Amino acid sequence: MPQRKLDVVLASVKRLIRVGANANLLNLLQKQHPADLAEVFGELPDRERQTAFNVLVERHPRHAMEALSELGPQVGAALLEDRSPEEIARFVQELESDDAAAIIEALPEDLSSSVLDLMRGKQDTEVENLLEFPEYTAGRIMNPNVFALAEDLTVGEAVTELQSARDVEMVFYLYTVDDRRHLVGVTSLRRLLLVAPETPLKRIADGEVLSVRVDTDQEEVARQVASYNLLAIPVVDLSNKLVGVITVDDVIDVIKDEATEDIYRLAGISSDDSVFAPASSSLRKRLPWLYVNLVTAFLAAAVVKVFESTISQATALAVFMPVVAGMGGNAGTQTLTVIVRGIALGELSFVNSRKALVKEALVGLGNGFGLGVVAAAAAWIIQGDFWLGLILGLAMVINMFVAATAGTLVPLGLRALKIDPALASSVFITTLTDVFGFLAFLGLGTVFLKYLVRAG
Amino acid sequence: MPQRKLDVVLASVKRLIRVGANANLLNLLQKQHPADLAEVFGELPDRERQTAFNVLVERHPRHAMEALSELGPQVGAALLEDRSPEEIARFVQELESDDAAAIIEALPEDLSSSVLDLMRGKQDTEVENLLEFPEYTAGRIMNPNVFALAEDLTVGEAVTELQSARDVEMVFYLYTVDDRRHLVGVTSLRRLLLVAPETPLKRIADGEVLSVRVDTDQEEVARQVASYNLLAIPVVDLSNKLVGVITVDDVIDVIKDEATEDIYRLAGISSDDSVFAPASSSLRKRLPWLYVNLVTAFLAAAVVKVFESTISQATALAVFMPVVAGMGGNAGTQTLTVIVRGIALGELSFVNSRKALVKEALVGLGNGFGLGVVAAAAAWIIQGDFWLGLILGLAMVINMFVAATAGTLVPLGLRALKIDPALASSVFITTLTDVFGFLAFLGLGTVFLKYLVRAG
Repeated sequence: MPQRKLDVVLASVKRLIRVGANANLLNLLQKQHPADLAEVFGELPDRERQTAFNVLVERHPRHAMEALSELGPQVGAALLEDRSPEEIARFVQELESDDAAAIIEALPEDLSSSVLDLMRGKQDTEVENLLEFPEYTAGRIMNPNVFALAEDLTVGEAVTELQSARDVEMVFYLYTVDDRRHLVGVTSLRRLLLVAPETPLKRIADGEVLSVRVDTDQEEVARQVASYNLLAIPVVDLSNKLVGVITVDDVIDVIKDEATEDIYRLAGISSDDSVFAPASSSLRKRLPWLYVNLVTAFLAAAVVKVFESTISQATALAVFMPVVAGMGGNAGTQTLTVIVRGIALGELSFVNSRKALVKEALVGLGNGFGLGVVAAAAAWIIQGDFWLGLILGLAMVINMFVAATAGTLVPLGLRALKIDPALASSVFITTLTDVFGFLAFLGLGTVFLKYLVRAG
Repeated sequence: MPQRKLDVVLASVKRLIRVGANANLLNLLQKQHPADLAEVFGELPDRERQTAFNVLVERHPRHAMEALSELGPQVGAALLEDRSPEEIARFVQELESDDAAAIIEALPEDLSSSVLDLMRGKQDTEVENLLEFPEYTAGRIMNPNVFALAEDLTVGEAVTELQSARDVEMVFYLYTVDDRRHLVGVTSLRRLLLVAPETPLKRIADGEVLSVRVDTDQEEVARQVASYNLLAIPVVDLSNKLVGVITVDDVIDVIKDEATEDIYRLAGISSDDSVFAPASSSLRKRLPWLYVNLVTAFLAAAVVKVFESTISQATALAVFMPVVAGMGGNAGTQTLTVIVRGIALGELSFVNSRKALVKEALVGLGNGFGLGVVAAAAAWIIQGDFWLGLILGLAMVINMFVAATAGTLVPLGLRALKIDPALASSVFITTLTDVFGFLAFLGLGTVFLKYLVRAG
């Protein structure tokens, strides 16, 4: 909702909680669209969020649960954690089973298995069935309540069936199935209106229906829905029987999640980390990656150590070390990001990778000269040492070139090895730019040592 | 399409181009779905892509142009650049006007204005009208061909109108308008089927119709469509007249573009940079950012310079400088990324920012102790100097804490100043971690200098 309206609602909610006016609070909350309610919940501090949710869920469980579901599984599950398994089971049954499955999975493990046990006891196995599909597959995110028409109906009979169906507001594609529920065709409501009622459905259905299998990766599902501009895609099991449908709103969530994953991986963060994950869990996920970085930082230190005697004779070299390494890292990250995103968006493949390499190498040389000249002049002026400036400038050119070529080749190489290029590239790049940066700068410093203004 | 099929088609296309079998090539290309064709074009080297496109566009201009449009404006426009304005004007008219506008905009400026002049001459002003809306607004990305029903029709009349309408395969929401085309309601095809034909449309239409204005930012459009799970949203002008519609497939493109923009900005890259942008244009876009970084790198160098005499007495300090600075940068980037993404996804706002700060500070201290102990031990062993290890360890703890708090406060502060936190945060963070890292490490080194093993 617009920021101004959000502010007003938020202020009212807080005031009503403060004075304990639960009846008024309930009235205000239940008038909001679940998506707006999720926004309000998102802005409330934990305690008030819990109070508002509790007030709503007792009287309007479906409304409260839909808002909770919009908050995302982690934040949503946290609002239920203090409840008994019986209450949770009752509440999640208000949701579509794919949303219910996501919430249950995000609960602490013992709670989630008690809830599932209870639901199984009540013959409600739909959620459990979904959870049997591996994470990140079509089977896990599909809605198993898919409306389908028997292919031997007439158009008139199909319209009658559609009129009597419940909960199919979102029907835009009408899938047709044979007598063993194999997916055989697709048509649209509008096409039904264009022909006589006695026309066989078979005649107007399109037999070329796109579908995904339950075990298709969710990223591939998103790619198909997005590239064919579909509103939904049917899901079939291994024998081509129709078992569910994935709508475009679920695909949007997948696309956002995949983008977050790419962004996180470039920074060395696990994809299930988040702003409000507990500190201990974030620490456990980030520290291992930092240890990997620590090893590579010591590798860079080892290179510097080789030149320790050079530094002791010309300490000005130590002053400009951070410039060479830092700029190499920055430029390398630029190239790396363009390449990784190009791979993710499908713009870059092996066929056209040589062209990308040549281009980035040119940019690297351009950056090197552009930065090298300025850095050289600045160092000359600051330190009053022409040779130091020259060495810094040359080292910058070399390191910018290394940054550009490594920034291109490393992610492409990882992809060839079937490793996600976003995952491991950045540590390689910073290591390479540190190592080659110090090698170039301190190596040149050693060669030209006699020209440098001595330390002390 | 599946990789295996893509490989087969790709190989055939290349072979047919090599032997010059244009008739067979045309036959193969025109059988592919435009989205698949775009994938094939994307994998072909430039020359072959141009040849394949040329062969197809002469005989099946619409098919070729739809594939070109799927390739994205930049790559697509490049395929047309060698054509005359007359040809380009003829070809782009095969597209929906929003797609045509995007392609025309991506052409070199003189070419794009000649094409627009030609289209204006032919009274085809739809594209030009779209281009009059500022970039990144609803007006720019909407489709102006929106199907609407007069609110005073009966349901039977509405169905008849729908049956005779052309090009409305994608109609799922039926918008109703008054006699001056003000948007007044919305209903669905399915609801039309549930009532008697003589029912007035007014009675079944829902008056609570969500819409966006032509000047609404495209990011806000995407947010609304995604959070209310819509398939399309109507666009109205400033007087609430219905002027277009934005469908969910366009929203998906916006979401992808915004994610790319966030990823790029975190790395200091302009959002219109890309893998195959010309080297000169990428250089022009990246170099200014690197110059900003260069200034901050010299700031870090200035800090080191203050301690030059300490370094000359204990050169081992220079060896471990890259470890302190590098690790601070890595940890700061982790925190920054989580915070920036949290802001982008709407999980983090000012209300709950204190909680985020406390959490990240705890993670920072945890990282500091975890890394500090290991780094201290490693430095002690490698350099054989207990005090050097201790100083390194302490500096790591301090710098990890700085990285975590700066990584949280800087993006929140930029957001408060209404600056995109993704844009400028990373340069602040690396500067702060460099400066405080060197201050802590070399400062402690100066204090404890007499305990350190001397250089030389």
